[in-house]
Amino acid sequence: MPRNLLLISSSRQNSQATALAHAKDSIIELLGDRKQVLFISYARPDGLTHAQYTALTRQAFQLNQLPYEVVGIESFDDPKEGVKQAEAIFTGGGNTFLLRRDIDPLMALIREKVAAGMPYMGSSAGSNMAGLTLNTTNDMPIVYPPGFDALGLIRFNINPHYPKPQPGVNMHAGESRDQRINEFHAVEENKQPVAALREDSMLFIRDERIELRSAAGSSVKVFYQGRDAVEYPAGTDLGFLEKSEG
Amino acid sequence: MPRNLLLISSSRQNSQATALAHAKDSIIELLGDRKQVLFISYARPDGLTHAQYTALTRQAFQLNQLPYEVVGIESFDDPKEGVKQAEAIFTGGGNTFLLRRDIDPLMALIREKVAAGMPYMGSSAGSNMAGLTLNTTNDMPIVYPPGFDALGLIRFNINPHYPKPQPGVNMHAGESRDQRINEFHAVEENKQPVAALREDSMLFIRDERIELRSAAGSSVKVFYQGRDAVEYPAGTDLGFLEKSEG
Repeated sequence: MPRNLLLISSSRQNSQATALAHAKDSIIELLGDRKQVLFISYARPDGLTHAQYTALTRQAFQLNQLPYEVVGIESFDDPKEGVKQAEAIFTGGGNTFLLRRDIDPLMALIREKVAAGMPYMGSSAGSNMAGLTLNTTNDMPIVYPPGFDALGLIRFNINPHYPKPQPGVNMHAGESRDQRINEFHAVEENKQPVAALREDSMLFIRDERIELRSAAGSSVKVFYQGRDAVEYPAGTDLGFLEKSEG
Repeated sequence: MPRNLLLISSSRQNSQATALAHAKDSIIELLGDRKQVLFISYARPDGLTHAQYTALTRQAFQLNQLPYEVVGIESFDDPKEGVKQAEAIFTGGGNTFLLRRDIDPLMALIREKVAAGMPYMGSSAGSNMAGLTLNTTNDMPIVYPPGFDALGLIRFNINPHYPKPQPGVNMHAGESRDQRINEFHAVEENKQPVAALREDSMLFIRDERIELRSAAGSSVKVFYQGRDAVEYPAGTDLGFLEKSEG
């Protein structure tokens, strides 16, 4: 089955960086000579309107001299028509729960087009959306979505914005990101591995190959149910993760 | 309407502290001369079994010389029977989504008993559960619950484990807890205030009075839809929050 995906942990490699700069080469490799990308603006970071969010993304494409027209899903009276016409899709980050609620009517159509080879690119929540489920998002559940199932474009889960070790700093007293992911795996039905992507990292996926790319050379930490997590260096083909689903 | 609630931000005032030590006097004030407390162990922090979690809580009661027998909900073949017999309920922290999924069949009964004056005590996820909705939990959504509605024992939301300012440290690149809560309020239907409780803080609620208590003297930060957040000092009666729901 053809597959063309780029799943970015974060829109910025770090808080000083220009949005998408660390992913520029991979975006060009993914999108090739296509002209347009449909931007799914539903995750609305900081409560931006859809149009504001699309404008910011268009600006990031321009700053990075990415030669693609960015068209917001909100510019279509019928969003399904937007997906049908799309040459490629970019699902932006923000709040995963808002995204999941609003993308619901489009999910089957997106899966179909991706299965036919259309490039899909996601950042943060948009990368969570490419996994099996949303159970390993970091976001606050500000709305109740119709499900936590995701697009399933890959057969495992993503945890984006995986922090570099910060001695003495936890999410709150005594609890770290690792503990949260371990709690996910303590639930018996949650058998899929979780690829915890540091902020400079992304997965570039062509057909069966799932390459870890990292702008600053980070490894990825993969969590498994019932056994220890493993770090894999940049450049690893993580295709084996799709065979270890329980 | 009689109301007897104690809503604790965190089981520990800080990572060095003994569990529940900071809340000891308030627990005695809440429970009075009752003999037993029913412990709802469903939130299962760190993937503990229900029985392990109850045992840890019983130990914390003993270490603090709290003169109450802790009975785990898991010790009843029919959990509803446990709630019916309860003199008081303590809902422990852990994962809010697990808690919400498993407490679902008991919610109506708990509301009924609390409305008749039975003391309810919650910590972290158990305090989120006392609010209007779970939309302002910090936890990872490791299971899909049947709703984000909570017990509604108070007419606003809690955000527990609200961090003290840590210069330079964000949840992830560029995003702070405040931004997350502001994203909650950017969704039009989310009109209720959010009381962000620092880890040494708790709400002691008797009838209409909602007193902020803080072991280390912290204020509470209350977030509102459409206007700036406000800090209120320890000792404040926050009863007015139940009148500002939209």
